[in-house]
Amino acid sequence: MSVERIILGIDPGLANTGWGIVSQRGARMECLAYGCVSTPSQLELSVRLAKIHEQIGAVIERYAPTCVGIETVWFGQNITAAFATGQARGAALVACAQAGLSVGEFTPKQIKLAVVGTGGAEKDQVQYMVKQLLGLSAVPKPDHAADALAAAICYTTHQGFEGKVSA
Amino acid sequence: MSVERIILGIDPGLANTGWGIVSQRGARMECLAYGCVSTPSQLELSVRLAKIHEQIGAVIERYAPTCVGIETVWFGQNITAAFATGQARGAALVACAQAGLSVGEFTPKQIKLAVVGTGGAEKDQVQYMVKQLLGLSAVPKPDHAADALAAAICYTTHQGFEGKVSA
Repeated sequence: MSVERIILGIDPGLANTGWGIVSQRGARMECLAYGCVSTPSQLELSVRLAKIHEQIGAVIERYAPTCVGIETVWFGQNITAAFATGQARGAALVACAQAGLSVGEFTPKQIKLAVVGTGGAEKDQVQYMVKQLLGLSAVPKPDHAADALAAAICYTTHQGFEGKVSA
Repeated sequence: MSVERIILGIDPGLANTGWGIVSQRGARMECLAYGCVSTPSQLELSVRLAKIHEQIGAVIERYAPTCVGIETVWFGQNITAAFATGQARGAALVACAQAGLSVGEFTPKQIKLAVVGTGGAEKDQVQYMVKQLLGLSAVPKPDHAADALAAAICYTTHQGFEGKVSA
């Protein structure tokens, strides 16, 4: 008997929302898919948000994750970025809650610690380790997708068991 | 022949999202309904956001507005509030876009100007004029509902014609 868990990672942003799907079976992790939802700035705000909601919903429907890892972003003093990213994050999280997924929120430091082993790691190191840990042939692009996969990997190390049992 | 337009006003917030429905026929405005979606802080964030999305969606389904007025909030230096409100606003706007509503965003100054006649009006004055303009017997409560109605009233003065024609 082995236990598999499917985890969705999300890196939310109004212009680009990265996503990644990681399956975990014991200590073994595998990347099933990743991508990025891009919304052109010419579109009306609500239409951009609906697109994020719809496409993250489609990813959830396709890969049937049971849980989500998402970064708790630090914006410094950039209130405009916080508000824009907040709206995108809200749109994505609605799709997660509608599918009944369990959401784990992690600080950038927690994610770096889980992926690289040190909370002060550089962005390049995180991306390199995402590639290594998931056995990919190259660093996932765009960066938003790599960051989403990092959040999913972090979930595997932080959360208790709630996976499905398969033969 | 007269033309009626149904407008939804929204005052988004994670704990309390106010909403109000105003019908406009020529210069005449009427309040059809108002309320507030409250989400307890004990609930998981994504569940709170899904509740806002669901209940604003239910209001849209019930009153069939064609357009939405929403305030562009100013947070000063409060990045935490900006991020929380941003997420709630994203959840509400997804429901609006899914229903194909046209969204008008207004600054607090624009709303005060439209409702009271001066961009520097106090909150009390705005709420009093919401009551007067809509012919209500009392100021709508909670404040979030009154603020949502003010955003809807602002829409009536700022946007061009796209109402439905009725007999």
